[in-house]
Amino acid sequence: MLAFLGGTGPEGRGLALRLAMAGEAVVIGSRDAARAANAAEELRALAPQAKIEGAANADAAGSADAVFLTFPYEGQRPTLEQLGTELAGKTVVNVIAPMTFQRGRGASAVEVEAGSAAQEAQELLPDSLVVGAFQTVSAEDLQDPGKTLEGDVIVCSDHQSAKDLVMGLTPKIPNLRPVDGGILANAKYVEQITPLLVNINRIYKVHAGIKVAGV
Amino acid sequence: MLAFLGGTGPEGRGLALRLAMAGEAVVIGSRDAARAANAAEELRALAPQAKIEGAANADAAGSADAVFLTFPYEGQRPTLEQLGTELAGKTVVNVIAPMTFQRGRGASAVEVEAGSAAQEAQELLPDSLVVGAFQTVSAEDLQDPGKTLEGDVIVCSDHQSAKDLVMGLTPKIPNLRPVDGGILANAKYVEQITPLLVNINRIYKVHAGIKVAGV
Repeated sequence: MLAFLGGTGPEGRGLALRLAMAGEAVVIGSRDAARAANAAEELRALAPQAKIEGAANADAAGSADAVFLTFPYEGQRPTLEQLGTELAGKTVVNVIAPMTFQRGRGASAVEVEAGSAAQEAQELLPDSLVVGAFQTVSAEDLQDPGKTLEGDVIVCSDHQSAKDLVMGLTPKIPNLRPVDGGILANAKYVEQITPLLVNINRIYKVHAGIKVAGV
Repeated sequence: MLAFLGGTGPEGRGLALRLAMAGEAVVIGSRDAARAANAAEELRALAPQAKIEGAANADAAGSADAVFLTFPYEGQRPTLEQLGTELAGKTVVNVIAPMTFQRGRGASAVEVEAGSAAQEAQELLPDSLVVGAFQTVSAEDLQDPGKTLEGDVIVCSDHQSAKDLVMGLTPKIPNLRPVDGGILANAKYVEQITPLLVNINRIYKVHAGIKVAGV
């Protein structure tokens, strides 16, 4: 079972939908169990064969083998401080790219004292196996089941087994390729590609991804 | 005329060689004019038809229409503090990605107070038109005239005419595509892709580039 905490948002919905379409059982987590159940129902309408349920974040985290963090960065510290027990020993996939938007400047990265959202999550969850991945994959394209995704998923972690698990899941979403991005500290650079892509999207009116050419 | 300050290093040599092969007149700049002349001679041996000369940095900067900064970050402040007059009114292409290397961690980005090397260069050269570009293009592949390059050049600047000039030069190197990366502040994210690529190169034993998929 894969859980998507904050999975009622666009990135969580999109990843949950695509992985459920690939045959994974998924659970959408939310602070509000009713909202999670609604989102699960909406996703099941898009993919009637898929196993998608909804639950409160703590129940979703407790029932899953791997847990995706797909809420905005602002929610990271309060959420993870509450869920240390549920997440202990598990693979935690941090999809968060801390960003802010300013008129005339577009998107820019928010500085994180730990280096990146992924590193901060690992500090908050010392007993979990944190992986940074999927930050650069378009939420819009993920949510459209007919859309072919373009781009790579750069996977960073200090835990090889967790990295292997995420690199194995990635190609279940058609056309997405995992690229080993090395240690978790490298997640900082991947997270910062996201505001760059947001700004490029605005210039070209596209949903761009990033590819590592030559690998 | 295009100048490459610190052009005796691998990135400067490679860019100068490729743009000279495309018919541009180039001048290699160095603190030491004799070293610049040597590098120019070595590059002419690789591309006998090309117009490549060597000069001291100040002379190279003074004679060129557009000037590429291809020295290590440590040299940026002292070099630019000396060359403000020569560089005034010109397009200055910052290729620098501030990086450090640590045993066991690989490459990591050096924090720059201005945000990025490109933004710092613009602060040091208020009368120049600074563009961030080419930071993610493999110096090894550029220096090998038979090698087809892979990847995009993400071009960031607050000066449209200078951005247009660099986006026009980019496809003169076969297979390199310019992508408009927006304002100069976005150069921070591009500069930080470079240590990520260095670490990925080490994992996969390749010379990776970056492509913006979907543009």
